[in-house]
Amino acid sequence: MKTTDNRSKQEWKDLEAAAGNGLVDRRAFLRGGAAFAAAITGYSVAKSAFAEPLADDPWSKVPGALSPPYEKRSHYEEKVVRSLSNPNGEPRTQHARTPHHLLNGTFTPNSLHFVISHAGDPDIDPDQHRLVIHGLVKQPLVFTLDALARYPMVSRMAFVECGGNSAPLFSLEPIQASVQALHGLVSCAEWTGVPLSTLLDEAGVDPKAKWIVAEGGDPPHVSRSVPLAKAMDDAMIALYQNGERIMPGNGYPLRLLLPGWEGNMNTKWVRRLQVTDQPGMTFYEARTYAPVLPGGKAYRFYFIQEVKSFITHPSPGLAMKGPGFYEISGVAYSGNGRIAKVTVSADGGKSWAQAALQQPVLSKAFTRFRAPWRWDGGPAVLQSRAWDEAGNVQPTRAQLVAGRGETTKVPPVTAFVSQHYNAIVSWSIERGGEVKHVYG
Amino acid sequence: MKTTDNRSKQEWKDLEAAAGNGLVDRRAFLRGGAAFAAAITGYSVAKSAFAEPLADDPWSKVPGALSPPYEKRSHYEEKVVRSLSNPNGEPRTQHARTPHHLLNGTFTPNSLHFVISHAGDPDIDPDQHRLVIHGLVKQPLVFTLDALARYPMVSRMAFVECGGNSAPLFSLEPIQASVQALHGLVSCAEWTGVPLSTLLDEAGVDPKAKWIVAEGGDPPHVSRSVPLAKAMDDAMIALYQNGERIMPGNGYPLRLLLPGWEGNMNTKWVRRLQVTDQPGMTFYEARTYAPVLPGGKAYRFYFIQEVKSFITHPSPGLAMKGPGFYEISGVAYSGNGRIAKVTVSADGGKSWAQAALQQPVLSKAFTRFRAPWRWDGGPAVLQSRAWDEAGNVQPTRAQLVAGRGETTKVPPVTAFVSQHYNAIVSWSIERGGEVKHVYG
Repeated sequence: MKTTDNRSKQEWKDLEAAAGNGLVDRRAFLRGGAAFAAAITGYSVAKSAFAEPLADDPWSKVPGALSPPYEKRSHYEEKVVRSLSNPNGEPRTQHARTPHHLLNGTFTPNSLHFVISHAGDPDIDPDQHRLVIHGLVKQPLVFTLDALARYPMVSRMAFVECGGNSAPLFSLEPIQASVQALHGLVSCAEWTGVPLSTLLDEAGVDPKAKWIVAEGGDPPHVSRSVPLAKAMDDAMIALYQNGERIMPGNGYPLRLLLPGWEGNMNTKWVRRLQVTDQPGMTFYEARTYAPVLPGGKAYRFYFIQEVKSFITHPSPGLAMKGPGFYEISGVAYSGNGRIAKVTVSADGGKSWAQAALQQPVLSKAFTRFRAPWRWDGGPAVLQSRAWDEAGNVQPTRAQLVAGRGETTKVPPVTAFVSQHYNAIVSWSIERGGEVKHVYG
Repeated sequence: MKTTDNRSKQEWKDLEAAAGNGLVDRRAFLRGGAAFAAAITGYSVAKSAFAEPLADDPWSKVPGALSPPYEKRSHYEEKVVRSLSNPNGEPRTQHARTPHHLLNGTFTPNSLHFVISHAGDPDIDPDQHRLVIHGLVKQPLVFTLDALARYPMVSRMAFVECGGNSAPLFSLEPIQASVQALHGLVSCAEWTGVPLSTLLDEAGVDPKAKWIVAEGGDPPHVSRSVPLAKAMDDAMIALYQNGERIMPGNGYPLRLLLPGWEGNMNTKWVRRLQVTDQPGMTFYEARTYAPVLPGGKAYRFYFIQEVKSFITHPSPGLAMKGPGFYEISGVAYSGNGRIAKVTVSADGGKSWAQAALQQPVLSKAFTRFRAPWRWDGGPAVLQSRAWDEAGNVQPTRAQLVAGRGETTKVPPVTAFVSQHYNAIVSWSIERGGEVKHVYG
C-alpha cells in the first residue's frame, strides 16, 4: 500500500490552496488533470496486487440470492440504523435519530428518517382514516384517502427538523457523541401530496380566520397551531415519502408538511384542521417549543428552523485512516429558502474555503456540500458555516449562547434552553486520527 | 356522498379547457380560486358526516408501536411489491418490475427499484471486494471500498432502464397488463459516488484508448463495452442509492452508472474496468442488445434510452371511481438530457394539452408530469407524449414499428425486435371505469 506521504511536495503545491491547514480549491477535481490525479494517488492498492487472470471471488462461484418482491439491503449494512432514546418502548417519548455519518447524498432513506413519537406509532387503517377541515369555513369537509388521491398533487424535497435537534450543544462542555446523537433529529425527503391551499379553498375560509389548529390521530392527539398564511403558502397534506406511502413513524397515512418549520408542527397522522381566529395554545407550543431566554422572557412562537450546517464526513466515530486526501462533506439547510453558500475551515475558523454545493440547490431541503482536504496528520479543527438566500448566516456558538443561554444542571431550565440550536459545529482531528467534538 | 354530477355546468366552464374530452388547463389549480375549488367539490364526504366531538379512532385508544432502528412501512402497504418473472429463483434470468401505478413523486424507493439479475444477486463482502482499472493505462490501480470512500464524490438523480423495457408493446395486439408489467423495467434514484473520470485520470489513460470493458463480480461476470468518451463524461462508480449503500440487486457494494444509457451497460457488482482500443463484443452487446431490423440488418450498438413517457395514474388495474375530477400523472425521461415538454391527450391523440412538469426538471432523470382532467364518464383514450431538450419527440407506435418491426410468433425473432420501445402508450377508459391497454 502506497501512502500519500510518498508524494512530492510539488504535487500538492500544484493544487490551489483555498484556506489554511490543507483545504484545497473546490474546483480542483472538476478541472481534472494530472495535478489532482497525482495528489490523490495512493489510496489504491499498489500495482503488485493486480495480476491476470483476476481470481474469482467466492461470491461469484455460487448462484446469487433471489431478488425478492420488496428488496432488503445487504446484511453487511445492518449496523446502519437509527439510535433509539427509548429502545424498550416505555410509556414516554421515543427519539429515533438518523445516522448521518453513514449516509451520503441529499436526502434520507425512509427507514432511517428521524422519528419522535410521544405514544408510539399508531396502526392506522387508511380506508378508515378521515381528514376533517372545519371551523371558520363555509363548508366543513371530510376527506377519505381515496378522495385525496384524486386531487392535484405536488412533489418537493423538504427537510423536517425537531426544534430540539442539536440540543446537546447548549451544554457547558462539549458532549462526546456521534453526529447521529448530536444532530440526528433532522432528515430530508421528497414529499408528495395535495397543497393544503387547494383543500382550504374548497372549504372556503372565512375572512376572520387567521390560524389553523392541526390535530394528530395518535393517542395524545398532538396538536399545533399554524398561521393561515403558512397554510396557504407551501403547506401540504403529504401522502407519499420518497415515492412510496409515508412511513408509520412519519404519519402514515398522511401528515401535514410545513416546509422549513419546526418538526413538531408538521402534524403526523393528521385527522383534523380547525380553522380559527387565534392560536390554540396547545401543550407543545405553550410549553416545550416556547424557548425561555436567560433574562426570563420567552419566545411565544419560534416556527422557523434557521440556517444550519454540520459536517458528516469526517465526524466523531469515523476515525481518519492515515494522512492524505479526504473529502469533507456535510449537509446544510435553511427554513428560509435555498442555501447560498457554505464555507469550511480546517483551522478552527481562522481561514475559510468555499465548499462545492451539490446541484440542484433546493429551497428548504438538504444541500450536500463538499470540500477537498489534505490532512497532513497534524491537529485540525473542522467547521462549516452556511448562508441562506435570505442573507442569514450561522452564528458562532458563542454568539448563540450569549443570547439564548447555556444548559445548567437544573433540569427544568435544561428543558427550556434546548431549542433551535443552529450555530457552528466543530470537530477536532487528533494526531492519531480520532475525531472529537469541541467548541471552536 | 356528493358527486360531481351535481355541480353546475357553469362551474366547469369556468375552468379553462386545454384540450378535448375534459382536459383542463394545467395552471387552473395553481391560480386557485373559487372556480377550481367548486369544480373539484364532491370528493369529500358530505357535511353530515362531521360532528363534534370527533370520535376517537380505535388506533388512538391504544399505545402505538415502537419506532424500530430500521423502520418498516405499514403492513397495509404490503401489496406494493415488485412482480417477479422467476419467483422461485430457477437458474435463469430474474426480472423484478417496479409498480409505477402504486408510487408517486419523481424517483423510486430502493426496495422497489427494478432489477434484472442473470444468476441471482451475489452476496459481496464489501471489505473483500476490489475494483481494478487496467489495460491501456500508465498505472493499473486496485481500489478497496475504503479507498474509494475518500475520493471526491457527486450525487445525481438518474433513471436506469432496461433496453427491453416495454417490449410487450412490440406485439401485434395490445397485451392486457398493468403499467408495472408493461413498463416496470425502468426506475430512478439518486446515485452518489466517484466520477469515473477521476479514477481514469489517476490511472493515466493511454492516448490509443477508445473503450472500456466493464466486468461484473456476479457469477456470469456480465460485461459490456463503453466508449471512453462516455466514461470520461458523466459516468460514475456509484456507492450510494437514495442516500444509503446501494441495494444487492443493484450492484452492492458498487456499480457503474452511465446516466441515460441502456441498463445492462450500467455494470452491477463491477470489479474490473479494462481500458482498450476496441469494444469487447461481449455476449450481451453482440446478441441481446443489438436490435435486428425488419430488413435483416441490425444495430451494432444502441446505447441511449430515448425520450419516453407513460401515464401511471390512471392505468390498467386502477379502475376509475365515478365521473369527475382526476389528475392524470406519469413519468417522462430521456437519455439525451432534460424533458422539455409533455403533452397529454384524452381523445386518443386528436387534441393535446400541455402537462405541468414537476420542478426541478433534471437531466436523464424522471420528470413527473401532471394534467387535470374531468372525466365525464364516457369513453376516453389517454396518451402522453414527451419532448427532450435535444429536440427528440416520442414517436407514435405506428411510426416506431414501421422502422423496427413487430413481434411475430417465431421465438428467435421475438427476442430481437423487443428492444428500445419508446413510442406513445395508450390507455382506454371504458364506460364502467375500467382502464385497458390499446394501440391508439
